[in-house]
Amino acid sequence: MNVGPVVALSGGVGGAKLALGLYRVLPPDSLTVICNPGDDFDHLGLRICPDADTVLYTLAGLANSETGWGRGGETWTFMQALAALGGESWFRLGDGDLALHVERSRRLAAGEPLSHVTENVARRLGVRARIVPACDAAVRTTVRTPGGRLPFQHYFVRDRCEPVVTGFDFEGAGDARPCGAALAALADPSLRCVVVCPSNPFISIDPILAVPGMADAIRAAAAPVIGVSPIVGGRAVKGPTAKMMRELGLDVSNRAIERHYGDVVDAWIIDSEDAADAAGFDRPVRVAPTLMRTGADKATLARAVLELAAEL
Amino acid sequence: MNVGPVVALSGGVGGAKLALGLYRVLPPDSLTVICNPGDDFDHLGLRICPDADTVLYTLAGLANSETGWGRGGETWTFMQALAALGGESWFRLGDGDLALHVERSRRLAAGEPLSHVTENVARRLGVRARIVPACDAAVRTTVRTPGGRLPFQHYFVRDRCEPVVTGFDFEGAGDARPCGAALAALADPSLRCVVVCPSNPFISIDPILAVPGMADAIRAAAAPVIGVSPIVGGRAVKGPTAKMMRELGLDVSNRAIERHYGDVVDAWIIDSEDAADAAGFDRPVRVAPTLMRTGADKATLARAVLELAAEL
Repeated sequence: MNVGPVVALSGGVGGAKLALGLYRVLPPDSLTVICNPGDDFDHLGLRICPDADTVLYTLAGLANSETGWGRGGETWTFMQALAALGGESWFRLGDGDLALHVERSRRLAAGEPLSHVTENVARRLGVRARIVPACDAAVRTTVRTPGGRLPFQHYFVRDRCEPVVTGFDFEGAGDARPCGAALAALADPSLRCVVVCPSNPFISIDPILAVPGMADAIRAAAAPVIGVSPIVGGRAVKGPTAKMMRELGLDVSNRAIERHYGDVVDAWIIDSEDAADAAGFDRPVRVAPTLMRTGADKATLARAVLELAAEL
Repeated sequence: MNVGPVVALSGGVGGAKLALGLYRVLPPDSLTVICNPGDDFDHLGLRICPDADTVLYTLAGLANSETGWGRGGETWTFMQALAALGGESWFRLGDGDLALHVERSRRLAAGEPLSHVTENVARRLGVRARIVPACDAAVRTTVRTPGGRLPFQHYFVRDRCEPVVTGFDFEGAGDARPCGAALAALADPSLRCVVVCPSNPFISIDPILAVPGMADAIRAAAAPVIGVSPIVGGRAVKGPTAKMMRELGLDVSNRAIERHYGDVVDAWIIDSEDAADAAGFDRPVRVAPTLMRTGADKATLARAVLELAAEL
């Protein structure tokens, strides 16, 4: 069995859970997580990278398990004081979380590439996985709605995913290129597998794949690409995936997820509850419990991914 | 007796105490505090204005009475998290305090003048005095020492005022001009008095006077200029004033303070303990208790200042 390194593509909460499972079952220093850059935005003069930060905090053991974002044991003095000053308070930033945004913004302003800052911060927090954005350049998801285009965080946080979605644009993606660490990890001849985490395909994984050269590098990798479907029993575990699929005229089904990714993914894991869906797939499918409530759940799913990769 | 408005020139703690006394004994909306810009610096990508902020927090009732800087009831989660990320932690920023720096930096980056932001923030916090920097442009105190020149906060906070001082430079002062609100307050024909607070002359008041046009506007004001000496019994109440006077070859005396300010100040208040010093003064002197431990102390000194102004 191949014991080489693993690359995971991840958005926020759901992706970070599987990334944590992989991190725990793999040897140290053998996981690279390529994070969604499309949620990133500049707010209060600071660069905020919500998905990469969720992965970072999750792997560092600092995540807030109740909210699904930010840090555990957080204080909120900054936010209260900012509101008193009349500052924008719709995007909530905890006091400890703020340190990451301030330090990252400072280093970016000094000319350091985002991928270097992200990797380095993870190492500082004791994480023995490589966490990198898909690219150093800014890629910004905007959401098309009947009322016009919305910057992602306005749609997602301020408007609570309420507007109907008619499509997505990944601004800046055309001029971006995959960061060096992502390309190097995908080009490793000893690669064991690439994992597409059960994140939202439209707003978490597509922005990664929209970076020119990324999808080709994944297809060219010397290892199978395993996708874990974010749909369970016709619903999304969390977030607006199912709502978006309906609004985009898609079936809310595992098969629709397979079709969405096309030839980027070689084989699929769907939830045990959806075993009957396997028959409709074009590519190999395995069933496994995909709900990750406990640490053991995460490790079990991670092992199922690695076993499927070993079989191919 | 003139009941017109008052202008105070202030540095940090000591100046803010007298400013608070004046604020409490004067009618609302009749005090303008012109703050020292020389302590301002850019740190972690944020604009920090320590002296103006001490005045703001003091007048808003938010000051930390134990430290003499920052806010009371503060939390320190940001600083702890920043240190864990390897960020610079020698200059301590509380979580609530940080909101002011982030919001100010954002507004400055958007093109708003510093004086406008400072005034507006004070109003937001319910302060009915005008708090403004001496100028909108950056003026940065650097401290000359035998080992070379030090940026002010490196001298003051990082090196705890330990290096011997041989002089000061106010970088950028030559290109600055007094902010409009400061000039308007000084030009008010109904002005009651200008107060030079008992702040450090070299690093708190001189940077204000170094802004071209400021000293002339003070001399031209239609009201007497009253100075309160920061020296009591041959020592400074707080901070490095006495140490600096010795290092600069000056007597640590009230008379040396009078000589330092020359014709900018019309009359002086010195501490009751130093009544014997009055004989040596060139200008009118009154004695009053200048140690401001309680709110009553501050109001008493403020009244003494106003009474002296009324006599002249």
